[in-house]
Amino acid sequence: MLIVPEREIADLMTREAAFDAVEKVFAAMASGDAYNFPVIREAIGHEDALYGFKGGFDRAGLTLGLKAGGYWPNNLERHGLINHQSTVFLFDADTGMVKAMVGGNLLTALRTAAASSVSIKHLARRDAKVLGMVGAGHQATFQLRAALEQRAFEKVIGWNYHPEMLPRIEKVAAEAGVPFEAVELDGMREADVIISITSAYAASLMAKHVSPGCHVACMGTDTKGKQEVEAALLARATVFTDEIAQSVTIGEAQHAIAEGLIGESDIAQLGAVINGTLPGRTSQEQITLFDGTGVGLQDLAVAASVVALAVEKGAAIEVDF
Amino acid sequence: MLIVPEREIADLMTREAAFDAVEKVFAAMASGDAYNFPVIREAIGHEDALYGFKGGFDRAGLTLGLKAGGYWPNNLERHGLINHQSTVFLFDADTGMVKAMVGGNLLTALRTAAASSVSIKHLARRDAKVLGMVGAGHQATFQLRAALEQRAFEKVIGWNYHPEMLPRIEKVAAEAGVPFEAVELDGMREADVIISITSAYAASLMAKHVSPGCHVACMGTDTKGKQEVEAALLARATVFTDEIAQSVTIGEAQHAIAEGLIGESDIAQLGAVINGTLPGRTSQEQITLFDGTGVGLQDLAVAASVVALAVEKGAAIEVDF
Repeated sequence: MLIVPEREIADLMTREAAFDAVEKVFAAMASGDAYNFPVIREAIGHEDALYGFKGGFDRAGLTLGLKAGGYWPNNLERHGLINHQSTVFLFDADTGMVKAMVGGNLLTALRTAAASSVSIKHLARRDAKVLGMVGAGHQATFQLRAALEQRAFEKVIGWNYHPEMLPRIEKVAAEAGVPFEAVELDGMREADVIISITSAYAASLMAKHVSPGCHVACMGTDTKGKQEVEAALLARATVFTDEIAQSVTIGEAQHAIAEGLIGESDIAQLGAVINGTLPGRTSQEQITLFDGTGVGLQDLAVAASVVALAVEKGAAIEVDF
Repeated sequence: MLIVPEREIADLMTREAAFDAVEKVFAAMASGDAYNFPVIREAIGHEDALYGFKGGFDRAGLTLGLKAGGYWPNNLERHGLINHQSTVFLFDADTGMVKAMVGGNLLTALRTAAASSVSIKHLARRDAKVLGMVGAGHQATFQLRAALEQRAFEKVIGWNYHPEMLPRIEKVAAEAGVPFEAVELDGMREADVIISITSAYAASLMAKHVSPGCHVACMGTDTKGKQEVEAALLARATVFTDEIAQSVTIGEAQHAIAEGLIGESDIAQLGAVINGTLPGRTSQEQITLFDGTGVGLQDLAVAASVVALAVEKGAAIEVDF
C-alpha cells in the first residue's frame, strides 16, 4: 500500500488537479456513477472533539474509501496542531484491501475551494469582473486563490465580521495582481460572484446585498443550524448543490426549506450542469447559488489524484501491508 | 504512526490478549465508558461487495477509530485472497491524528472467538463437560480453540449442515487432546455449552435440542434476516448480548423480538455481568444465551492490544506521517 504524508501534499497537489478531480466526481454523482455513504459524526465526549467518517464509492473511477477525522478545538493551544485533523483511506474496489493512506488536512481545504471554483466555472457570468468575499479566515484564502483563476476578475471586495482579518485575503488578491477593497455588506451589490465562507449560525449576506446576475457560492454551512445567507436569497436564486440530501438537511438550503420558501425539487445537482443534462445559468440577470455542503467523494477524488501524482514523482512511501 | 501488517498478527496476537481486550471493552461498554458509532454497511454495486465502517470510542482506554472493509465474495476465486477483508485504523483521542493501521482479518476471527469465550467464562456452568459446536467453517475453528480454554471440557460434539466439513473442528479438538464426536442436532442435548457459528438464514438449533443448564453462544447472526436458533429458545433462556441495540435489530434476538416472545428489556449486557452490576447465571438449570453480534469496539480493542505487543517486540513499522 502507498502512504502520502500530510507534509508532501503541498508540493504534490495543484489547484488544477483538485479542480479536475472535484468536477469529475460531481459529474459522476449526478450520473449515478458515484455515491456518498451516510456520514458518521460523533461528539465523542473527550477534548470537545467531533469525530467521524465520510465515505463513498465512485464506480466510474473505482475510488472507494473514506475520510476519517474531525475537529479538535484545543489542538492549536495545547499541542500546536491545527484543529481540523483528517486522513483519507483508499481501498481497492476489486478486493477490499487497503490501497493508500493520505494526509487529509490540506486536501480538505483544496477540495472545498475546488468546489466553489467548479460552481463559478459552470454558473457565473462569463463577463464577471468583481469577486466578493464574505469571510476572511484560513479557508477563505484557498477559496479566493482558486476562484481568481475562473474569470478575468478586475477587483476583489471583502467583508468579514472581524475586519482586522481582511488583510489575509487582501494579500492573496495582491499576489494575483488584483486590487482589493474592504466593503460593508451593502457593497457586495457590486459583486458578480460572491463566495461566502464563514462558520456563522446566522445570516450575514441578505437578499438585498446581492445584485441580479450574481453567482453566490455558499461554502460554510455543513451542519444543522449553521447559516450564511438570508433564506429569501435562495427563493430569489436558482439553487444548485453538490448533494441534494445534504443541502436540505445540513447545507445552506436547510433554512429556506424549513421556512417553506423553496422545496427540494427547486434544488439541482451541479453535476447535472457539468454533464449537460441540466441547464446552468440561462440569463444575465438570473442569480445562481451554489450550496457547497462538502461530500466524502470530493475527499476521495482529490486523495486518489494526489496518490497518482505521488507515484509519478516517487514521493509515495510504499509499505508492504 | 505505526503499521502492523496482516502477516505479523499471527505471531504477535495471543488468544489471551484477545480475551482480555474483549472482556475489558465489554465491561467499558456496560459502564458507559465506551460506545460504538452507528455502523455503515453498503452494497457498493461492484464485485457484489459489502463495504463499511464500524467505529467507536473507549474513553477508559482512550481507544478511538474504526474498522473498515467488508466482504468480497469473489476474492478467493479471482485473486486467491480471503473474502473478508478489513483494516483497523486507530486515532489519537487527544489530537485526532492517525496513530496506527493494523491488518484486521485474523483479528476479526480472534475477537469474535474471544467474545464467545468471555460469555462462557461468565455464564457457563463451572462443571461444564461437553462442548457442542453448530457449524464447522473457518470461524468455528477459532471459536472452538478459544472455548476449550474456558472449562475442563471432556468432549466436543459437532454438527454441520455439510457434515464433510466436521473434520476441521475435529482436528482442533484433537490438538487440544479432547475427543470429538459428530452428532445429529438431537445430540446437542448432551452439551453443557453450545457455540453456534454459521451464516444461516433459518434456525438449525431448536429449543428442544438444548438441555437445562446449557449456555448457548450464538455467534453467527450479524445481519437482518440471519438466524441460527429457534426464537423459542430465547424465550426459555436468560439472554445476554454485547450490544442491545444490535441484538434486537441484526442479532439473534431480532426474531424473538419480532415474534413478541421477548422484549428489549429481557436482554442484558454481558459487560454488566463482567462489572458485577448484574448477576449472570443464577442456577444450575438455567439456560443462558449470549447473542454475539460483533461491535467495532472489539476490533479497536484487539487492534490496540496488538499494536502494544508489536511495539514491545519491535515488529511495528514506523512511518513519519
